[in-house]
Amino acid sequence: MKLIDHIRVIEDYPIEGISFKDISTLLKDPQAFREAIHEMVEVSKTFDFDLILAAEARGFIVGAPLAYAMGKGFVPIRKPGKLPFDVLRQSYELEYGTDFLEMHKDAIKKGDRVLIVDDLLATGGTSKAAIQMAESLGAVVAGCLYLVELCDLPGRKTLEGYQVESIVKYE
Amino acid sequence: MKLIDHIRVIEDYPIEGISFKDISTLLKDPQAFREAIHEMVEVSKTFDFDLILAAEARGFIVGAPLAYAMGKGFVPIRKPGKLPFDVLRQSYELEYGTDFLEMHKDAIKKGDRVLIVDDLLATGGTSKAAIQMAESLGAVVAGCLYLVELCDLPGRKTLEGYQVESIVKYE
Repeated sequence: MKLIDHIRVIEDYPIEGISFKDISTLLKDPQAFREAIHEMVEVSKTFDFDLILAAEARGFIVGAPLAYAMGKGFVPIRKPGKLPFDVLRQSYELEYGTDFLEMHKDAIKKGDRVLIVDDLLATGGTSKAAIQMAESLGAVVAGCLYLVELCDLPGRKTLEGYQVESIVKYE
Repeated sequence: MKLIDHIRVIEDYPIEGISFKDISTLLKDPQAFREAIHEMVEVSKTFDFDLILAAEARGFIVGAPLAYAMGKGFVPIRKPGKLPFDVLRQSYELEYGTDFLEMHKDAIKKGDRVLIVDDLLATGGTSKAAIQMAESLGAVVAGCLYLVELCDLPGRKTLEGYQVESIVKYE
């Protein structure tokens, strides 16, 4: 199965000049969704990790099944004001602006090995913020794993020094 | 394992008088997260369905692993403006206000059997909106499945006529 054939490309969304990769067409296809997570499971075995960190909302759709399949814990990273306990807050640069992310301070223990997971690697801003929060809590970042990578954007440069893997690559 | 012991209760969040059920403590525990999804898998076998519908963001954390484990498709229901293709929009009542949800019009085909999945059943407003959208697209709603149910709120009344199941019940 070619997973890339199950992803819909929408031109000029959300703004002109952006070629948006819509994974909803992949997700609704049982075989394609299963195969996508299965391939992420296989690649995740090249990382030594205890916990998956994923940012809302689409990061949850790939990160949570991966954590379940690998028997790992799952830590949600959320937009400000969504988490009920003591949080860390980190600013980050989006592909189309600037925003903040939060995670629970007690989500990670010193020395935990974490894998950052998301549906898409674009500029790497979200993942960089996740790494900064995880490391400030004493975690070891095992690496980053994505379903889709936009290879013409500087994601790997942003994440230099970390192992980065992806399943579907747009060159 | 008693899953309820892994859920943190935070009083007066997000507003005074609300006793918030924080599942992040369950999610970060590999055994508890795995057991929670495993129990949802077992209960989901009592429904005849093709697709899982789940609303952002916490709904994705339980809905996506369940879809993966059961070999079903996954349809995300999102806040307005997040989905890139043609959408249906539905208003709904939250436990703490009113909002809108959207889903892709092409996410469901007439006759598809859908299971509504969320982390929490409170007033049932989100699930009701999901049901309305699914049925307006010609789907058959097989039922609703939750990780946590707040039994003193009128969720089951809101969803009267549909099979409703939950794993962890707060009486």
